Amino acid sequence: MPRAVYTGTPTFAVMDGEAQPPGPGQVRIDVAFTGICGTDLHIRHGAMDGRVSRPAVIGHEMAGRIGEIGPGVSGWAAGDPVTVVPLEWCGDCPACRSGHHHICHNLNFVGIDSPGSLQSSWTVPARLLARLPPGLPLERAALVEPTAVAVHDVRRAGLVPGEMAVVVGGGPIGLLVARVAAADGADVLLLELDARRRAVAQRLGVSAVDPSTEDVKEHVAEWTSGAGAAVAFEVSGSAAGIGLATESLATRGRLVMVAIHTVPREVDLFRLFWRELSIIGARVYEREDVERAVQLVARGTIPADVLISRVFPITRVNEAFDALERGGEVKVLVDCQAGADA
Amino acid sequence: MPRAVYTGTPTFAVMDGEAQPPGPGQVRIDVAFTGICGTDLHIRHGAMDGRVSRPAVIGHEMAGRIGEIGPGVSGWAAGDPVTVVPLEWCGDCPACRSGHHHICHNLNFVGIDSPGSLQSSWTVPARLLARLPPGLPLERAALVEPTAVAVHDVRRAGLVPGEMAVVVGGGPIGLLVARVAAADGADVLLLELDARRRAVAQRLGVSAVDPSTEDVKEHVAEWTSGAGAAVAFEVSGSAAGIGLATESLATRGRLVMVAIHTVPREVDLFRLFWRELSIIGARVYEREDVERAVQLVARGTIPADVLISRVFPITRVNEAFDALERGGEVKVLVDCQAGADA
Repeated sequence: MPRAVYTGTPTFAVMDGEAQPPGPGQVRIDVAFTGICGTDLHIRHGAMDGRVSRPAVIGHEMAGRIGEIGPGVSGWAAGDPVTVVPLEWCGDCPACRSGHHHICHNLNFVGIDSPGSLQSSWTVPARLLARLPPGLPLERAALVEPTAVAVHDVRRAGLVPGEMAVVVGGGPIGLLVARVAAADGADVLLLELDARRRAVAQRLGVSAVDPSTEDVKEHVAEWTSGAGAAVAFEVSGSAAGIGLATESLATRGRLVMVAIHTVPREVDLFRLFWRELSIIGARVYEREDVERAVQLVARGTIPADVLISRVFPITRVNEAFDALERGGEVKVLVDCQAGADA
Repeated sequence: MPRAVYTGTPTFAVMDGEAQPPGPGQVRIDVAFTGICGTDLHIRHGAMDGRVSRPAVIGHEMAGRIGEIGPGVSGWAAGDPVTVVPLEWCGDCPACRSGHHHICHNLNFVGIDSPGSLQSSWTVPARLLARLPPGLPLERAALVEPTAVAVHDVRRAGLVPGEMAVVVGGGPIGLLVARVAAADGADVLLLELDARRRAVAQRLGVSAVDPSTEDVKEHVAEWTSGAGAAVAFEVSGSAAGIGLATESLATRGRLVMVAIHTVPREVDLFRLFWRELSIIGARVYEREDVERAVQLVARGTIPADVLISRVFPITRVNEAFDALERGGEVKVLVDCQAGADA
């Protein structure tokens, strides 16, 4: 069975591997599709070599069907459509003991810290499975994992229907956050430099402006009748994005930090004080977020046709990564089914 | 009647003034004591000349008795012991319309933006009054306003009894925050460089360590069995304080920014993400905070004997400011009663 192997160079080796029979408590999944995430791009370029043991099969945004059931697994059958919640926690650290398993101090992020889904056959603990509705095309279901990120971000914001929300940055996660916030009843404004991404936002029914040509402060003031937005999501990863998000907020506004800022950033703490703002960290998702994401994708609230811009067979996985890095794509999927390029 | 007048130099002029008879809806207060706040020190040195119209009578931490009642004022009588909630809002801005009057976009902070209580007779709108219990000495009641700040900060933290809280900075507000958090059932650790302030903390029953000689990260880890603190309060106003507060927090920990940082500060947003922290802005107080503060001061939960270190008559107001600036004092009061130095 084919698999894409990261060996420490930006070119994945597509190799033939043996399917791993499921052990006790495990299932073997016939992977259908795997989406490529920003983290996968970082891994490809060596930025996460401290966490990724090579040779490595990566990938965690997936959908497939159960191929085989291991001993002691109940409630699941071969052929069941599934996705995987790729978080394994220790159950014993302070985060786990306080109920926040998803940010366990010893978290194993499956597909980063342990083998992932860029292969046609993937063996995982059955406890990580999430059920997909029978009628949901598996290509669309590969969007469940990034949608769960967005659901978690919106939930961390405590968004109330009717509130106004600014999303800074219109990459795949920013677009999903905008779409989920809109589905939750927010009036959403996306700030995005790239015209192609702004066009995608419009196809999602989200207003988008270019912060390099538009006076954001004035625009937000006019849009919110001088109040400012109740919520902002920083999804750009840039220092400037933090400034735009902070200055857009109303009294008691909440800023959810979605993007990962690996270096300390300057924050306008005077404005935080003056308007009693909150800045809220958000990381991955909890199971309830994944379940909500399954519903949103299944109902078409997350429009797969707008968001999935290219699908490559696993034999052409390097082209899939290249296409994403060239820009202009939204979500790029890899068809992991054996013989997908036939 | 004597009053201390700021004329634009760091030396207050103690002048004789006419008591202002109360107009409709107003009361005239015979001010007993006024505490000196950090903001008053800034004003004295010209740092807030943009807001303060000179000549100015400043001061807002006070207690006194009603001297005279203006037309149309009901529910109050001459002789009633009172303090003033020194916030006047417009009622019509987005903050007011969303119920957050205390951070009104057009807030008049009485004692900064309009005349204050460093005078023996002070005329204010009756709607700003807060009632004091009859038996509470007015000297102690001058602590109500800074205590209300601390109550608001602790409330913004959403503190739950049994949680562990780190307070960074042990000036008057930091000490009050520590005391209020402890009264609300928190286990509190104060980080403070100054040995005298740490000694005051101990008299308040609050553990204190010196972050310049102690490894705070290790100390907090040991104290919290590796979890980190649920809450941190940044009351130092320093860049280093933000780092100490952030690194002390547990998963989902809340950092309340109490100190005013007038310049943007670097914040470890990676840790915010990794542990899903929140940073919460807090400014002044709401009426319910003032009412709680009255109770805490009246019951002795806020021990006035530990916190009030010097009292100067208004004729020696400059010495009061000098003493506070020399350091070593906690709270310095000005006795505003006419003939206080007799």
